[in-house]
Amino acid sequence: MQYKQLQNNELSALLAGEMKKFNEFKEKGFKLDLTRGKPCKEQLDLSMGMFDIVNSKTVFGDDKNDYRNYGFIKGVPELNRIFAKLLGVDEEEIISANSSSLCMMYDAVQRAMQFGVLGSKPWNGQGIKFICPSPGYDRHFRICETFGIEMIAVPMTDNGIDMDLVEELVSKDDKIKGIWCVPKYSNPDGITYSDETVKRLAKMKTAASDFRIFWDQAYFIHSLSGDDDKLLNILDLCNEAGNPNRVYIFASTSKITFASGGVAFFASSENNIAEAVKRMGAQTINPNKMSQWMHYEFFKTAEGVLEHMKKHAAILKPKFDAFLTIFKNAFQTDSDVVRWTRPKGGYFISVYVLEGCAAKVIDLCKECGLSLTPAGATYPMGIDDSDSNIRIAPSCCSLEEISISAEILVCCIRIAVLEKLMED
Amino acid sequence: MQYKQLQNNELSALLAGEMKKFNEFKEKGFKLDLTRGKPCKEQLDLSMGMFDIVNSKTVFGDDKNDYRNYGFIKGVPELNRIFAKLLGVDEEEIISANSSSLCMMYDAVQRAMQFGVLGSKPWNGQGIKFICPSPGYDRHFRICETFGIEMIAVPMTDNGIDMDLVEELVSKDDKIKGIWCVPKYSNPDGITYSDETVKRLAKMKTAASDFRIFWDQAYFIHSLSGDDDKLLNILDLCNEAGNPNRVYIFASTSKITFASGGVAFFASSENNIAEAVKRMGAQTINPNKMSQWMHYEFFKTAEGVLEHMKKHAAILKPKFDAFLTIFKNAFQTDSDVVRWTRPKGGYFISVYVLEGCAAKVIDLCKECGLSLTPAGATYPMGIDDSDSNIRIAPSCCSLEEISISAEILVCCIRIAVLEKLMED
Repeated sequence: MQYKQLQNNELSALLAGEMKKFNEFKEKGFKLDLTRGKPCKEQLDLSMGMFDIVNSKTVFGDDKNDYRNYGFIKGVPELNRIFAKLLGVDEEEIISANSSSLCMMYDAVQRAMQFGVLGSKPWNGQGIKFICPSPGYDRHFRICETFGIEMIAVPMTDNGIDMDLVEELVSKDDKIKGIWCVPKYSNPDGITYSDETVKRLAKMKTAASDFRIFWDQAYFIHSLSGDDDKLLNILDLCNEAGNPNRVYIFASTSKITFASGGVAFFASSENNIAEAVKRMGAQTINPNKMSQWMHYEFFKTAEGVLEHMKKHAAILKPKFDAFLTIFKNAFQTDSDVVRWTRPKGGYFISVYVLEGCAAKVIDLCKECGLSLTPAGATYPMGIDDSDSNIRIAPSCCSLEEISISAEILVCCIRIAVLEKLMED
Repeated sequence: MQYKQLQNNELSALLAGEMKKFNEFKEKGFKLDLTRGKPCKEQLDLSMGMFDIVNSKTVFGDDKNDYRNYGFIKGVPELNRIFAKLLGVDEEEIISANSSSLCMMYDAVQRAMQFGVLGSKPWNGQGIKFICPSPGYDRHFRICETFGIEMIAVPMTDNGIDMDLVEELVSKDDKIKGIWCVPKYSNPDGITYSDETVKRLAKMKTAASDFRIFWDQAYFIHSLSGDDDKLLNILDLCNEAGNPNRVYIFASTSKITFASGGVAFFASSENNIAEAVKRMGAQTINPNKMSQWMHYEFFKTAEGVLEHMKKHAAILKPKFDAFLTIFKNAFQTDSDVVRWTRPKGGYFISVYVLEGCAAKVIDLCKECGLSLTPAGATYPMGIDDSDSNIRIAPSCCSLEEISISAEILVCCIRIAVLEKLMED
């Protein structure tokens, strides 16, 4: 329906109908939560077999190495090999750590702030800036906030980011030291960076010689069906472009095995890895190699991991489909007041409502017992200038819950939009 | 034997006898290693039952909480309760993390450098200093080195540290922001701080209002026999003295369960814990709670942990005894060229040889195939001015290996000392 062409009395009639539904939802006393990109119980159960593989007789390691003891700061080589293959890097270009890739990102920023990178001046005290594709992952932005790094919001496009703008910014300002990217199935839009976008990021001229791309591969093998997006290998492209040390790649098994007990990875050029290992040598003796070995025993090969991911997709896809079907039925695809993403992977659906309505929609949903990510949360400093984006995380609900949630959201969007149109 | 009273011809005769033994050792082609305070295989095996307790049906958590998923940045409360009791703090005064307490120490220093503590100015750029009781743990000193923190070496005494000197230093210099302490069974001397030492640390006047004691409880329940040293509760004493936020306490299960897959703890005042949690909230979502839950299931209670520690002692004590017996037989207890510690717990024996001989002894041992921690390694910047201390780590050898190692060491000490006395 094209809402903007309706007369006030038509809008008013529609609003009355939606208010009736809204009050019915309120009376039901729902308690629904679409805020967090968490795996659901059934997904976590997929990896529990890991604990049947190990027992008190398990050998953690081989003849030469007892992984239960100190050592191996780069993590268990057998597991590194599997994820090097999945990430398209060499064995010498990856290290595995504890469970949190966020922690590896924070620590990478922290080390650069304190020590600089590969001999450059420490970033502390320089008034540095990061480019923040927006909307994006709130925790990336929080790292910037924590270190007082100025955030420059650059809009996402269907190809990834507005590369014209990025190129212009980084070429002129040597205070711009980094960019946050979730290049595949981005959070929250589910966009995969196009070949051209990745190539331009790898070869663009940067005023700062110590510029780094923080390449968060949070969803690199997290497709929802067989039709997986293809992402170019940025490490190779950086090498070819003569910028071999430009990119830091991060990934984890938080949404492959366990959100709280997985393994995180850091991949980069050999020089960057060597620098990280040197610095980390003052911080720790080794990561939890026993958890890493259990992951290795569970998967054995890269193919084993990919097979496992199909089981996740089988759980997640129906949830995404249920939501998308309700939205399509409610608004058709050519609505003039709402659009939404149809991602082929990742953990989120992004809904864009008429400007100035997102916060209102989220408040209305709250009244019906549906919790959504706060408006603006996916923008630097939590500010969505157009007050339009709403992030939906369908993974952690049941199919029934996602359907009810979608119905509530449809109703609340209509109310907010209708009221807004009547005001204007 | 009192070597210093011997005539040159007597020294020369003794040296000839030792050189004969030395050459015999060399010919044997030993490969022995006393460098590292690592648990041995039998100790690691003690905790393997942990992997029989869990399987694919294990519930990680309870009705309300699924510890396999995101959340609980302070770690698993059930495990925190056990270690709060063991460390003598309240449940609100402890958090559990990943496997490395060293990492928690590094991060605590890093946060203070970057952000200050409880509202104080960041330590970065202030030219700050730490007091380093010496000899001590080389990795504490390496953290200082990494951040460019000046290290002030203060000698260890039988009561812990030279408190007169510490009090004088911290009262006068507001650049002194911290002190590293291993208060129980210290590395490498095995000394436990006396009641007076702990009380004075808690109540001393410090010129810096943001002074912190880094209290590394690496061996807090690691006695070698039933006769455990008693250490006063420094958090209570700091509270009583009106310095409630002065101390950061660290511990881990690296030498309780697994050196590579244990759980680390940070205990402090509620204010300090709240500050750490706030900062960590930008760094990570949670530690590996699955490993924490497995530890909880394995121990269940504080008493369970203490019972477990007796099994470690049963493995370690004979190794310490074997070494000490050989030394006593070789040098008696009143030697004028060598003294050594007889610790009631921890992982090390400290041998002090005639000044100027430690490096030589270690070189000679190397020739016989016995690796020892490099001379000076336990001093700031790796410099032992008196070239006297040799750190012995008996844990990771077999009983036979420790006996041979001790015999080699006795021989090499005699040679180095005799040569030195003949020079003088």
